[in-house]
Amino acid sequence: MISKNQLKLIRALGQKKQRRAHGLFLVQGEKNVLELVKTDYRVQQVFATQDFLDRYSQCLIGYECIEATLEDLTKASTLVSNNAAIAIVEIPQLIEPEAEGFMIALDGVSDPGNLGTIIRLADWYGIKHIVASEDCADPYSPKTISATMGSFARVTVTQLNLPDYLKHAHLPIYGAFLDGENVHNVSFSAQGILLMGSESHGIREQASQHVTNKITIPSFGGAESLNVAMAAGIIIDNIRRHHG
Amino acid sequence: MISKNQLKLIRALGQKKQRRAHGLFLVQGEKNVLELVKTDYRVQQVFATQDFLDRYSQCLIGYECIEATLEDLTKASTLVSNNAAIAIVEIPQLIEPEAEGFMIALDGVSDPGNLGTIIRLADWYGIKHIVASEDCADPYSPKTISATMGSFARVTVTQLNLPDYLKHAHLPIYGAFLDGENVHNVSFSAQGILLMGSESHGIREQASQHVTNKITIPSFGGAESLNVAMAAGIIIDNIRRHHG
Repeated sequence: MISKNQLKLIRALGQKKQRRAHGLFLVQGEKNVLELVKTDYRVQQVFATQDFLDRYSQCLIGYECIEATLEDLTKASTLVSNNAAIAIVEIPQLIEPEAEGFMIALDGVSDPGNLGTIIRLADWYGIKHIVASEDCADPYSPKTISATMGSFARVTVTQLNLPDYLKHAHLPIYGAFLDGENVHNVSFSAQGILLMGSESHGIREQASQHVTNKITIPSFGGAESLNVAMAAGIIIDNIRRHHG
Repeated sequence: MISKNQLKLIRALGQKKQRRAHGLFLVQGEKNVLELVKTDYRVQQVFATQDFLDRYSQCLIGYECIEATLEDLTKASTLVSNNAAIAIVEIPQLIEPEAEGFMIALDGVSDPGNLGTIIRLADWYGIKHIVASEDCADPYSPKTISATMGSFARVTVTQLNLPDYLKHAHLPIYGAFLDGENVHNVSFSAQGILLMGSESHGIREQASQHVTNKITIPSFGGAESLNVAMAAGIIIDNIRRHHG
């Protein structure tokens, strides 16, 4: 059973301010919770249906599990579906990642669904680190975690002073613009940073001044732009074609 | 002002059954309505704020425009934001597109956000026609139209008997699977059909039997899959690299 206090805490963790205050976030849904328990994230509790606990008892050894009805889980959840399990997890203390390998940098990408999709994408292409400006969507928001489809566990997202990070990165910085070099013709280097801006504002001046290569996805039709996650995916595929 | 009956109609058009019964759909938000009035879609009415009507009076000549407050538009709208304008539009009678050029075929892609994103993507890459199985998301759902960001006006989506269409297409059919040829190595032909299945069920047997080339986006990390719109984008970029 989920106690009143636990329910209150779960509900509170839907809000960024409360996540910061408690140092906790939620991982919800079967797929995401199963990915979670493979990692070394510090999990406080797992609330789940009896069915979930029975089916995955092997994976859940060592975790504090609390049985709850699907109804209670749905009531507690901040998501509309996938309510078989909810975990309360400590937000890890990330250190600023070394600028090496291929990384993604996000400037003002404020939609958590886009951020989550980019995390999933990074995971698909084996990119381990994302750095993000402070005003990007919260990597620990339930919508972000949900959109990662479990990939949150394999990709770090570090919020930091982005212009400062880029300034000291000593790597080629590929910035996605509408007037850069056609990505089909770019010779990407083996290490570098792909910098993406928000759909509404693009890459802002403070970050764009550190771009070494302006790149563009060629357009053949009438659409004015692509969704930022989509654009990131297409560019990363072009990078991996060179350096798989 | 939006009359009671008009409000009732707008609300009703949020539902597929009502859209079919009336032969009408909604186009909502500044960007989508501005794209709409450039086309030859038959528009019944445009409800918009005074500000919108003033700013775009040149584009709106010949349209029946009805002024409404932002509050009333928000109340009427089936979307949470972008409520400056709502148009009631006739659903066009589409004929089955000839199988030629490069096309996209969708099998059971039921999420309207994904469908809308794929329409936007097709428009970016100059693909004019999408054919979709009958159980795909409704191309005229408000969520689909919203996600197209105006591209609904330049790309047709025809729902039809997909296996039957593919059978008679006489074009190479590239099906996205997890165990096909690496897209980086595929020599795409100038004309063809890219067939995508749903994230949960993939391409179903009835459609997959007509696939001539199984293709795959290479994976370098831990994610099990990519979102269907994302995967479509990456593959189409690979196609356009050969045949821009």
